[in-house]
Amino acid sequence: MAQADYGRRLAATRARLTAAGLDGLLISSAYNRRYLTGFTPTDGDITESSGWVMVTPKTFGLITGTFHLNGIEDEIQPSGVGVLLTDEALPWDVAARVAGEDGVRRLGFEKAWLSFDRYDRVRRALPAGTELIPSDDLIRHVRAVKDAAEIATMRRAADIANRAFAQLTSRIQVGMTERRIAALLDQLMKDLGAEGPSFPTIVACGPGGALPHAVPTDRGVRPGEPLLIDFGCRVDGYCSDLTRTFCIGEPEPKLVEIYAIVRQAQDAAFEALRSGTRQGRAVDAAARKVIDDAGYKDEFMHGLGHGVGLAVHELPAATMLRIKTPEQEAELAKVETIETDSVVTNEPGIYIAGWGGVRLEDMVLVTAGGAELFTDRNPKDILSIAG
Amino acid sequence: MAQADYGRRLAATRARLTAAGLDGLLISSAYNRRYLTGFTPTDGDITESSGWVMVTPKTFGLITGTFHLNGIEDEIQPSGVGVLLTDEALPWDVAARVAGEDGVRRLGFEKAWLSFDRYDRVRRALPAGTELIPSDDLIRHVRAVKDAAEIATMRRAADIANRAFAQLTSRIQVGMTERRIAALLDQLMKDLGAEGPSFPTIVACGPGGALPHAVPTDRGVRPGEPLLIDFGCRVDGYCSDLTRTFCIGEPEPKLVEIYAIVRQAQDAAFEALRSGTRQGRAVDAAARKVIDDAGYKDEFMHGLGHGVGLAVHELPAATMLRIKTPEQEAELAKVETIETDSVVTNEPGIYIAGWGGVRLEDMVLVTAGGAELFTDRNPKDILSIAG
Repeated sequence: MAQADYGRRLAATRARLTAAGLDGLLISSAYNRRYLTGFTPTDGDITESSGWVMVTPKTFGLITGTFHLNGIEDEIQPSGVGVLLTDEALPWDVAARVAGEDGVRRLGFEKAWLSFDRYDRVRRALPAGTELIPSDDLIRHVRAVKDAAEIATMRRAADIANRAFAQLTSRIQVGMTERRIAALLDQLMKDLGAEGPSFPTIVACGPGGALPHAVPTDRGVRPGEPLLIDFGCRVDGYCSDLTRTFCIGEPEPKLVEIYAIVRQAQDAAFEALRSGTRQGRAVDAAARKVIDDAGYKDEFMHGLGHGVGLAVHELPAATMLRIKTPEQEAELAKVETIETDSVVTNEPGIYIAGWGGVRLEDMVLVTAGGAELFTDRNPKDILSIAG
Repeated sequence: MAQADYGRRLAATRARLTAAGLDGLLISSAYNRRYLTGFTPTDGDITESSGWVMVTPKTFGLITGTFHLNGIEDEIQPSGVGVLLTDEALPWDVAARVAGEDGVRRLGFEKAWLSFDRYDRVRRALPAGTELIPSDDLIRHVRAVKDAAEIATMRRAADIANRAFAQLTSRIQVGMTERRIAALLDQLMKDLGAEGPSFPTIVACGPGGALPHAVPTDRGVRPGEPLLIDFGCRVDGYCSDLTRTFCIGEPEPKLVEIYAIVRQAQDAAFEALRSGTRQGRAVDAAARKVIDDAGYKDEFMHGLGHGVGLAVHELPAATMLRIKTPEQEAELAKVETIETDSVVTNEPGIYIAGWGGVRLEDMVLVTAGGAELFTDRNPKDILSIAG
């Protein structure tokens, strides 16, 4: 089994820190924390953090309490991170002490991942010589490129989702509710070894498939209508994310038509990746053209795909939507490059109010010259189950 | 069925706003958003918000996009909230426009519930006459007192958890893993109509019960050792939260002893609530004295309980731990008053490293002169199942 390459992760983080004009970084994103240290606890919400990480030229430290670390000390061993205990001190005071000891002048913090309240506490605790600088999430760029251990883990997460779906199809029947189908799928993924779903499973039949939020309801599935399931699971913290659209019995003619268009769009995007296209908006454009040409331009209103990893949504971004101003253009340029060894979703869709939606989503590993599917594909012709 | 009293909620919010010297409040807590408006979408994480609420003397508005609102317009109808769409504008620009139109001079924001990044965007968008003021979470004080509709919903959440646990005990067997038991319990709660667990279910057998994080492992449960399960479910957004400790077959003598102490401690706290004690630290003290007197002072290292509602952890706080400075004392005083119609947990525990833990947790509705249990109790003598 490949080992997480913690040395590379820390070195790449320090390099980005320097490039950003910082000599220290306070990390509050739970994803980045786990990525650098192996520390698995999650945070309840923005007000309940189980720890921060401090990186300076001299220090690589996990700021946490014995309460959180007790029993899982082994997890952080391979990363070489030191422990800065908060048992007798507040976390902002610990961060401030390290900044002072290490002579940090420009301490960055992850401005999107720290509440104003915590920011303000750190700011007030810092010694006079240390400035607290709002920073972009620098480590998400490092995380976009997966190492061998991550790729192996994500293959398992995709494989469990694939197998759970195959089992699910033999158990769905006409009239089964969206809620029941979602609960069953979650259970199948857990039984196959997943930690749990990687996000709340979406099961939407008929018109519900055209609604963006798609919380499973008590509506029962009917023959012939589209049944859209967007799901995935977590294995060792890493997510899978895939979408199947299929039906019970004979599909309505409209469903056959829409399905064929979405699948062609997906093929076009995969072909772009396979042949070396590495700009997110260009991959999105390849799929979007198919859907536009078929007359459903306004019915594909989301981006084509996104990176996957510890977070369900991470870099790179594969979209060309909502780019209206030069600032938005500049923001997109920072996040759309698809690097070798990144894992991205390919998920075009068509959504028709009052009728339903078809989305087909696979996970793709981008390799040096090409691309490889992680997930079983939705078949060329729509899957029709007995039910 | 009782209706949510949105009028009272908004009026109480406006009163607290005025008392805090503010003439507007930007609400980013998803709990507070749902509480005031009925809007159910959740936020992925701190970087993914599905909406904010703006309250001024003139405006009560939900700042969100058609994407989030589509198909669930009915949810927000009873609250009377207006919709301030972000389809063509950024949320901070919408908030700034309302502040300007309403002549807001001191706009508060929930400093613990907004990232520095979003804070900074709002700040830069505001007109010259509006100051952006860090505010405590004012609405959590309003939420601490439940109305009739909330109490009815929470009864259902507690009842489903009770029934799921009863079903679970007939299916646990020696050797079943913590992970498997947790997955089964989650499934039973869903089958009984819950939206899902209200937090990741804790199942810890033997020594694992003494670890605070207690993520379910692949260890199988053995006869006679303590089996601790801390769980709950969500119904219409509201949480239940209870803990059972029991065993398979004949309990070890040590388990019988520890169980008896914890149950007496729980009785003492309930008796304090029933007889009108309304200061959180005093209720905690009643339970803690029993455990201290039995010689396990250092083995009960967490607070006695907390309020429950839309959040698993909310006001009031029932704890007397970690109060060392006058500032901490003042903070506690703000959050420990137990009001009539609040729902609190009563969860003393004893944890012994290398052996295990016993925690007994019920949910208690605090009434005008007394207190009422929401949950089935752990029995007087430890439950021993056949397994």
